[in-house]
Amino acid sequence: MARPSLREKLASSAVETLHANGFRGCSIQDITEAAGVPKGSFFNHFENKEDLAIDSVRRYLEGARSDILFEAGVAPLDRLRNHFTFLAERLEQNGFERGCMMGRFATEMAQDYPRMREELRSMFDVWCGAVESALREAQAAGDIDPRHDPGQLARYLVNAWQGATIRLKITRDRSPIDDFFNTSFKVLLK
Amino acid sequence: MARPSLREKLASSAVETLHANGFRGCSIQDITEAAGVPKGSFFNHFENKEDLAIDSVRRYLEGARSDILFEAGVAPLDRLRNHFTFLAERLEQNGFERGCMMGRFATEMAQDYPRMREELRSMFDVWCGAVESALREAQAAGDIDPRHDPGQLARYLVNAWQGATIRLKITRDRSPIDDFFNTSFKVLLK
Repeated sequence: MARPSLREKLASSAVETLHANGFRGCSIQDITEAAGVPKGSFFNHFENKEDLAIDSVRRYLEGARSDILFEAGVAPLDRLRNHFTFLAERLEQNGFERGCMMGRFATEMAQDYPRMREELRSMFDVWCGAVESALREAQAAGDIDPRHDPGQLARYLVNAWQGATIRLKITRDRSPIDDFFNTSFKVLLK
Repeated sequence: MARPSLREKLASSAVETLHANGFRGCSIQDITEAAGVPKGSFFNHFENKEDLAIDSVRRYLEGARSDILFEAGVAPLDRLRNHFTFLAERLEQNGFERGCMMGRFATEMAQDYPRMREELRSMFDVWCGAVESALREAQAAGDIDPRHDPGQLARYLVNAWQGATIRLKITRDRSPIDDFFNTSFKVLLK
C-alpha cells in the first residue's frame, strides 16, 4: 500500500482531533502533533484552521453512510430508521461524549466563520432533502399521513436529532436517542 | 438605587459576554473588561471561569420566564406555545446569532467540566418536568392523545427545540422555529 501523503495523514487525523475537542478546543499545533506531522507543514496544505475544519466535516459526512437512506428493496420508513440507527451507533462508539460534528461546528463557528456556515447550510440542506425523499416515498406508499408536509417533517426530524445529540453529552447514555426513536417513529410518523 | 456590587456587575455582564462568545470564545480578561471591573478582582468573587459560567447559565434560566408554563387560566397547550414563543423572541432579539446558552455550554463544556454537566442535567430535567406537567394537563383535558407518554414527549420537544436553536445559527432566520411550531403543535401534539 502506498504511504499516505502528508496532507492525507494530517486531514484524516484532524477529523478525530477536531471531533473530540471541538474547533476552539484544539490548536493547529494539537492537530499536527496528533497527526505526527511537522507543525510547519500545515500551511503548505491548508489555508487556515477553518479550511481544515471544512475538510474534516466533509470527511465526517462521507462516513455517515447516506447510502442507507436510498437502499433498494427496503421500505422507506425502515431506511429512515436504519439511517438514524447507524448514526446512533457512531455516537455510542464515542461513549456519547462527542455529539455530532456538524452540530458542534454550527454552535462554535457559525457566528464567526461564514465559509463554515455556508458549508453547514448546504450539508444540512442535502441531509434534509434525503430524509424528505424517504418521507415522500413513505407517504406515496400510504405509510404516513398524506396531510404531512414531508419537507417540514424532514427538517424537524433532523433538528430533533441534533437536539438529541446535544442532550446525550449531558446524560452520557442513550436515553435521548431512545426518546428520539420512540417519539419520531411511534408518534410523529404515524 | 444602590450601586451594584462589583460581584453583581461582573456576574450580570458575564451572562452577555459568555452568551455572545461561548465559554471557549472569551477569556476571563474579556469578561472583566466587558464588565468594566479590574481583572484582578475576578478571583475574589469566583473560583474559576466554570464557576462564573454556572452562575451565568442560572441567570440565563431565570430570564426564561418559566412562570408562563404555569400561568393560571390559560389552557395547557396555549401555555406551552406561549413558553416557546417567549424563547423564540429572545433568540430573535439576538439576530439568531447566539442560540441557547444551555445548548451552547452542553456542546462546549459537558465533556470536560463535570460540575457544569451536572448543573445542565438538572436544569434540563426541571425544564422537561415543567413541559411534562403541561402535557399531562393537556392530556387530562382531552387535548392530546391519551396514549402519549408525556415525559417522553416533553423530552423530545425540548430536544427538538435545542436542535432548532442550533439550526438557526446557520439559517440566520426564524425558519427552524417555524418548523418547530408547525410540526410540534400541528402534527405531534394532535
